[in-house]
Amino acid sequence: MSEKISKIGVLTSGGDAPGMNAAIRAVVRTCAYHNIKCMGIYRGFEGMIEGDISEMGPRFVKNIVNKGGTILKSARSKEFMTAEGRKKAYENLKANGIDALVIIGGDGSFTGGMVFNKEFGFPIMGIPGTIDNDIFGTSFTLGYDTALNTVVEAIDKIRDTANSHNRLFFVEVMGRDAGHIALNAGIGAGAEEILIPEEDLGLDRLLESLRRSKLSGKSSSIVVVSEGDKIGKNVFELKDYVEENMPEYDVRVSVLGHMQRGGSPSCFDRVLASRLGVKAVESLLEGKSNYMVGLISDKIVLTPLEQAVKGQSKIDEELLRVSDIMST
Amino acid sequence: MSEKISKIGVLTSGGDAPGMNAAIRAVVRTCAYHNIKCMGIYRGFEGMIEGDISEMGPRFVKNIVNKGGTILKSARSKEFMTAEGRKKAYENLKANGIDALVIIGGDGSFTGGMVFNKEFGFPIMGIPGTIDNDIFGTSFTLGYDTALNTVVEAIDKIRDTANSHNRLFFVEVMGRDAGHIALNAGIGAGAEEILIPEEDLGLDRLLESLRRSKLSGKSSSIVVVSEGDKIGKNVFELKDYVEENMPEYDVRVSVLGHMQRGGSPSCFDRVLASRLGVKAVESLLEGKSNYMVGLISDKIVLTPLEQAVKGQSKIDEELLRVSDIMST
Amino acid sequence: MSEKISKIGVLTSGGDAPGMNAAIRAVVRTCAYHNIKCMGIYRGFEGMIEGDISEMGPRFVKNIVNKGGTILKSARSKEFMTAEGRKKAYENLKANGIDALVIIGGDGSFTGGMVFNKEFGFPIMGIPGTIDNDIFGTSFTLGYDTALNTVVEAIDKIRDTANSHNRLFFVEVMGRDAGHIALNAGIGAGAEEILIPEEDLGLDRLLESLRRSKLSGKSSSIVVVSEGDKIGKNVFELKDYVEENMPEYDVRVSVLGHMQRGGSPSCFDRVLASRLGVKAVESLLEGKSNYMVGLISDKIVLTPLEQAVKGQSKIDEELLRVSDIMST
Amino acid sequence: MSEKISKIGVLTSGGDAPGMNAAIRAVVRTCAYHNIKCMGIYRGFEGMIEGDISEMGPRFVKNIVNKGGTILKSARSKEFMTAEGRKKAYENLKANGIDALVIIGGDGSFTGGMVFNKEFGFPIMGIPGTIDNDIFGTSFTLGYDTALNTVVEAIDKIRDTANSHNRLFFVEVMGRDAGHIALNAGIGAGAEEILIPEEDLGLDRLLESLRRSKLSGKSSSIVVVSEGDKIGKNVFELKDYVEENMPEYDVRVSVLGHMQRGGSPSCFDRVLASRLGVKAVESLLEGKSNYMVGLISDKIVLTPLEQAVKGQSKIDEELLRVSDIMST
Repeated sequence: MSEKISKIGVLTSGGDAPGMNAAIRAVVRTCAYHNIKCMGIYRGFEGMIEGDISEMGPRFVKNIVNKGGTILKSARSKEFMTAEGRKKAYENLKANGIDALVIIGGDGSFTGGMVFNKEFGFPIMGIPGTIDNDIFGTSFTLGYDTALNTVVEAIDKIRDTANSHNRLFFVEVMGRDAGHIALNAGIGAGAEEILIPEEDLGLDRLLESLRRSKLSGKSSSIVVVSEGDKIGKNVFELKDYVEENMPEYDVRVSVLGHMQRGGSPSCFDRVLASRLGVKAVESLLEGKSNYMVGLISDKIVLTPLEQAVKGQSKIDEELLRVSDIMST
Repeated sequence: MSEKISKIGVLTSGGDAPGMNAAIRAVVRTCAYHNIKCMGIYRGFEGMIEGDISEMGPRFVKNIVNKGGTILKSARSKEFMTAEGRKKAYENLKANGIDALVIIGGDGSFTGGMVFNKEFGFPIMGIPGTIDNDIFGTSFTLGYDTALNTVVEAIDKIRDTANSHNRLFFVEVMGRDAGHIALNAGIGAGAEEILIPEEDLGLDRLLESLRRSKLSGKSSSIVVVSEGDKIGKNVFELKDYVEENMPEYDVRVSVLGHMQRGGSPSCFDRVLASRLGVKAVESLLEGKSNYMVGLISDKIVLTPLEQAVKGQSKIDEELLRVSDIMST
Repeated sequence: MSEKISKIGVLTSGGDAPGMNAAIRAVVRTCAYHNIKCMGIYRGFEGMIEGDISEMGPRFVKNIVNKGGTILKSARSKEFMTAEGRKKAYENLKANGIDALVIIGGDGSFTGGMVFNKEFGFPIMGIPGTIDNDIFGTSFTLGYDTALNTVVEAIDKIRDTANSHNRLFFVEVMGRDAGHIALNAGIGAGAEEILIPEEDLGLDRLLESLRRSKLSGKSSSIVVVSEGDKIGKNVFELKDYVEENMPEYDVRVSVLGHMQRGGSPSCFDRVLASRLGVKAVESLLEGKSNYMVGLISDKIVLTPLEQAVKGQSKIDEELLRVSDIMST
Repeated sequence: MSEKISKIGVLTSGGDAPGMNAAIRAVVRTCAYHNIKCMGIYRGFEGMIEGDISEMGPRFVKNIVNKGGTILKSARSKEFMTAEGRKKAYENLKANGIDALVIIGGDGSFTGGMVFNKEFGFPIMGIPGTIDNDIFGTSFTLGYDTALNTVVEAIDKIRDTANSHNRLFFVEVMGRDAGHIALNAGIGAGAEEILIPEEDLGLDRLLESLRRSKLSGKSSSIVVVSEGDKIGKNVFELKDYVEENMPEYDVRVSVLGHMQRGGSPSCFDRVLASRLGVKAVESLLEGKSNYMVGLISDKIVLTPLEQAVKGQSKIDEELLRVSDIMST
């Protein structure tokens, strides 16, 4: 089967993440290295359906290794959820002579890819690209390390103000249903408390912790709250609740928002993207399909897409303990 | 009169701003240079009332030129608004042998200082420290240049995402009642439209501008909104309004928040802080009082505090025009 | 004369500087605003001679406001120094229908432009783009503010190491024959001593200053040295000299090098570039020629190119004094 | 044995690295969490000999998680290489009631620690702190990830200039005898060629690669050179050699230098430091000694110090291949 592959298509899908461009570049250059062609498909599955596809040579991707976002753009496609839409997409791939597909994205994108593969037997390979790190089969998703740095740098700035005014800040960070960003950036930023969906702290224990913090002589505090946290109150309600119950605190809220998704990727994300891109293309060339490439135990490995989508990326219990000890 | 000054107190008051520490350092070292003592007063007027005061030598302020926030901390003091509170404050200054006061802060802090000067004839000198650049008598307040860089860097990241998804973003920035941050950071970040309190664009013209932008082939747009803008809708209501009237736009909101106040100061702010600190101390030593030091036309000059407080820092009409032309 | 201008060419020449792209964008968009065409000339005067010229519309310059370097590239052209070369260049401009020229660069580029103007009566306008800030007729050249931030951020990192090891560092910074970068970044980074070409400190006074610094309890020291400094020893010889004479010091050298020329421009440089670009185009449209646009006393003004080239951008005496006081 | 430990000493030794302060904080807070005391030993083994030791409580280490360098300072100690020096050191530890020692540093520091442990049976635990990543028993040393980001950000800036002028740059980076920084930062920065000590490319192949690069249409090139590279020429000689043999290239050199050792640590380094600090203290409390804590396959594990010192941290062959493919 591998002999047949002479042209690979690549697309980015779902929320954009730093490192996606570095991965695109790696896919393009690995194709060139193996003397096969590479086609860029714009706006994810939407562009596949609309035939928004064009060739990319190795010089086309120069100077993008350090750029945030995705030059192929991303979009969510309703039409791809229909059999008709997918048929159009398949015909466009064939019309362009594309033999295999690299999908850079998250769970949703992989699920779309698997359906497509099932219907048309089209070879696909997934690269995990999302800042949320919520994908099974890789210790790090593309963009996650960069997002962590963006978050700690923002909280470092907020800490300047918190310290100057002896304030308590609730800082909401991204992560969808996973607490990876909150937990790691919280430890990195020296947060006094971290609220994540995987662990229900409860409002009572939050108050208790803040009281203990105050007693221990801390003059300012940062509480990092994951957007998916399940404490039962959003970050603005939390502020009101704490101010009611602990009037000694001057509380502020900061929702870091979309800046977490952008920015020049960290060196870690650029290298990871390069390694994943090489492996994705070479795995397709070896005749493999329906896998996700990922980093586990410092090695680039394959995980069946079905497992990647069904499995859960768990929070490390050791980190929860480290977080507790650090707020001593 | 200048002969009498042998000990100068310094405090930071109001919202903190990058460069305040560099200004404190400059005040301390200029005192040392002139062989007089310098006392740090903690938490603004609050610490003056409570006697939270201690000596600072030139080594005490090493390694703070590049730190955000203020090592002297800041606070708002209700008690200083009472005659009784100010009397306590005056007695504490006398008890500590302090002959003159440098106040690093904004309008409110200067007003407090003027009342204090009027009541006790105490020599004071103001240094404009606020990111909002809303003080008459200086082209740049301390922290403003740093905040501009923080804002454009954040919007650069948001632009990565906006471009990848062909989205419209409303980005709210600080500035209180002044549009300086919004206008300058908006031009710097290449915003398609900028909403500031000094200019009422109106909702109709906003929609018109966004339509024109879409027609001209722009695939994504950033609208920078000053927190003090008077268009009649907050930034979340703006999103709803635009989505209702222009369903072709996928709109997102980002409120940059308190991170704008923190961070390591820019070189510009560090140098400005050093120059203002030197001038503040030396002006006191020359017997001057009740002035604010500021930067006008590249020179460090004095403006009577009363003018600084009453006057208005205006938006440059030329910049409004530049902004219009840039969004062509 | 102004009626005749319907197409403006723009080029970047000499060393590149952050903000050049923002200036190119401003020139392009101001042309579009006034409904005239804009042509990009690649690789400075070299591209003018070779006819490496193409049209740029307002969308062509999207997303470059925050990019370092110059999309038009830069080069030094020996051929332009010959009458023959300039004649070719002139013919290429005419062949492309270009009526006027915006030159973004430094002294050398402006001199080339003036000769060209004299020979062919071709309208030209200069925009000062260099990190060195060594041009008369503007308080800030494009790229200077960004370079200052790059330098202080690098020295902040070096300070971490200097402090950890109680070391003395000589840090060489750019600036050609001018000490602006060294003096301002030196103050901003809290340097103990600053060596610039405009002021001959002398080796004896340097040693004396370092001795005093040691005595005053400073455990580490940074000396910023301008590349054009005239103390008679380069930065590596300085290290040897100090180690011989003050064996108690553990001395290190760091030459910051070319990274000072790159990077995303600061907000200040982006706004300045936008203002200068608007003024350059509109001045040409008003029939003016042979001027440089610049920022003096917070206003955008014109200076005859001849003055800009002959005049000297002087070091501010006040800053030398501030630097002295800060190292107390 | 663990019952006996009631006071732990901590020191930093060798070259400083970002994350050392975060590790110190983690050691201090983990001690507090377990209700034992923690003593800071200043200037490495030097301070142990001189008795420069003082207690650190959990508030003492607030706001240092994000600071570069080491608040405990570092130094190289000749006296510790003598039996007499070590005896003094031992007596000082005993006099201060210190039962166990955490050493944050590299190979040399661990060797010193092992000798000390052998002589006095003193419990010690190592934390790998160096930007060079040249220690066996951990996939990441503290400071390495931060240094990689510092290097790619610097090269990104240099790339702006290289692109604008169609130049070739040789960029020398740190790493001692190991090529980890050069290889990873080279891939991350999109270098055309990477010279590391582990792989002798040879001058001929370098020229060949540069020629191929030129032919393939690349207009500018970055070659990253590890300081320990064994190609037989230093980076300045390389420049001369290439200019002689390929006069079509305009070559520049940049030696990044000591800024690579400083700066605020990345989130990765802060979290790693926290995890290593917890494990180091808790391992001592469990009665373990003479180990280094490290990160292998995403887990914090112990490696006997002897192995850590003798073993070699190897370059990943896969990365060499990725680097080759990326420069296609």
